[in-house]
Amino acid sequence: MSLAADVLSGNRRALARALSVVEGKLDGCFEIMNTLYPHTGNAHIIGVTGAPGTGKSSIVNQLALALRKRGKTVGVVAVDPTSPFTGGAILGDRIRMRDLSGDAGVFIRSMATRGSLGGLAQATANVVRVLDAARFDVILIETVGAGQSEVDIARHALSVLVVEAPGLGDDVQAIKAGILEIADVLVVNKSDDPRASNTVRSLRAMLDLGNLRSVRQMVDHHGRLMEAIPAARELTAEADGWQVPIQQTVATNGTGIDDLVSLLDTHRVYLISSGELERRMQILAASELDTLLRESLIERLLNGVDQVQLAELVERVVTRDLAPQAAVDLLLENRL
Amino acid sequence: MSLAADVLSGNRRALARALSVVEGKLDGCFEIMNTLYPHTGNAHIIGVTGAPGTGKSSIVNQLALALRKRGKTVGVVAVDPTSPFTGGAILGDRIRMRDLSGDAGVFIRSMATRGSLGGLAQATANVVRVLDAARFDVILIETVGAGQSEVDIARHALSVLVVEAPGLGDDVQAIKAGILEIADVLVVNKSDDPRASNTVRSLRAMLDLGNLRSVRQMVDHHGRLMEAIPAARELTAEADGWQVPIQQTVATNGTGIDDLVSLLDTHRVYLISSGELERRMQILAASELDTLLRESLIERLLNGVDQVQLAELVERVVTRDLAPQAAVDLLLENRL
Repeated sequence: MSLAADVLSGNRRALARALSVVEGKLDGCFEIMNTLYPHTGNAHIIGVTGAPGTGKSSIVNQLALALRKRGKTVGVVAVDPTSPFTGGAILGDRIRMRDLSGDAGVFIRSMATRGSLGGLAQATANVVRVLDAARFDVILIETVGAGQSEVDIARHALSVLVVEAPGLGDDVQAIKAGILEIADVLVVNKSDDPRASNTVRSLRAMLDLGNLRSVRQMVDHHGRLMEAIPAARELTAEADGWQVPIQQTVATNGTGIDDLVSLLDTHRVYLISSGELERRMQILAASELDTLLRESLIERLLNGVDQVQLAELVERVVTRDLAPQAAVDLLLENRL
Repeated sequence: MSLAADVLSGNRRALARALSVVEGKLDGCFEIMNTLYPHTGNAHIIGVTGAPGTGKSSIVNQLALALRKRGKTVGVVAVDPTSPFTGGAILGDRIRMRDLSGDAGVFIRSMATRGSLGGLAQATANVVRVLDAARFDVILIETVGAGQSEVDIARHALSVLVVEAPGLGDDVQAIKAGILEIADVLVVNKSDDPRASNTVRSLRAMLDLGNLRSVRQMVDHHGRLMEAIPAARELTAEADGWQVPIQQTVATNGTGIDDLVSLLDTHRVYLISSGELERRMQILAASELDTLLRESLIERLLNGVDQVQLAELVERVVTRDLAPQAAVDLLLENRL
């Protein structure tokens, strides 16, 4: 039996091995993904992002526990290198995480963050897809809320939860990083801090001002392939039927977590009934095709080019003998 | 006379127009870049990055003033949307910035941050290059220190300055974002804060532990083209001759700025004498060729594909009829 078939039959050891293969893009990766792909699309994939110090790992932990209590199986994918799930934990976090260990309904996977971040987004997508095919009901992706890589990874989530916390030196940290724009649900964690009401007020003001869009701003990132999708073209124009809610939590004692789970359920229902789910999946597919296409095209081109000639070309650019675009034209026309 | 020639002759209006063309990738962009490229490579390009609240805009401001006093011309490129240079200023910053306005030896350009971040890195590279060709002695690139996009942009700098500040809710904020790894010089700003010595101590401890590498970790980001460059392959093995210094500053009153300018001079001398400059330029060239090549390849391929067929292909991926890699194979084999 193939590794992919073992994954589909619920074999945990096969799951772990398959995840290593797709994460490392090892031999057999494409075969596994091609076999598993038809079995994906069922999990509720939830991205949890936020600046360091907001307590998003604790939120992930509490969400997993709450979902387990409701009988759901949960996969956790930690992309944040500072997450306790990836080993970068402070003691308190590690102790709390024991709540989840030993539960067969939970599978925790942390991504190796070495290598390119573009590759990381792709590897994360594949890991999530394998967990999806392995029939986890909910998959939580934890990323540190900082920059494009997180946006890329969040794109693979159907619901995005952005975690804020009071007292991080700024009223609302994530605004500056452009992370709030991708939020479907905002969480103000550490709400037992007296400054929490300020944080909530700041966020509410921004939502009211219409500065934020719950619709994800992913159109121009992969321009060319997106043009083929009418839904994506209409993205900026579309009136959005979802009001981004702000949920206050205290993850350390579980306050607000049940409400948060309910909000995520509501968001999933909204996604399906509004057609937004279909639209997000189209955009996701186009974006992924674009990434894979670029990868494959450059592989094919460079396979036909001599390494020595390539080094000479780079040197000509370094010495200003040739402008970068002129060098690329030479490569494309095969006139090296 | 062409726009590029006008830029080379020192025409300020032409410079502004050329910058708009290359930033927006408007018609004539390639021609301008090809004409200007042989005239680049002379400026000391300095990246200044750090989390919001560290005062890096003030550092940029003070550096520009100090460099002007030494008779150098200075270009400032602000990529951080929260920078006062891009208009996202608090009042104090705006007032301080007046020090620079009206000085013909300073040119300030802020990047529009809409659109894809990959495109932003490329646009920033081109803007920097135009300023380089326009003979600015030093070019300061200010980016918000968060994630891969900043690393991509910093890669275009020859010296990277990472700004920290005490009391941002964490001893050392940037560590978590992986930004410290790209630092050539560390700055602890707001050093009049009593907690600054703690921040310095934390940074020093990390440097001593060898957790950080001053050599930039840029090898595996653009794997294939890098393989052609022996220097890049040796990157991880090479013993690095530069000890990352920690400079304390109080940007609001200029404390430590002269020392910082001296450190940056020292770093430039080190880059040249050690051969590191040549190596960084090779890596930069390879990385840029890679980016441009991917762009051009996908353009060419998709130009030959019918939009309706492309939309159908995306739909087949969405409905799980076809796995993403299988769809890409169809596109590549022209079997749509």
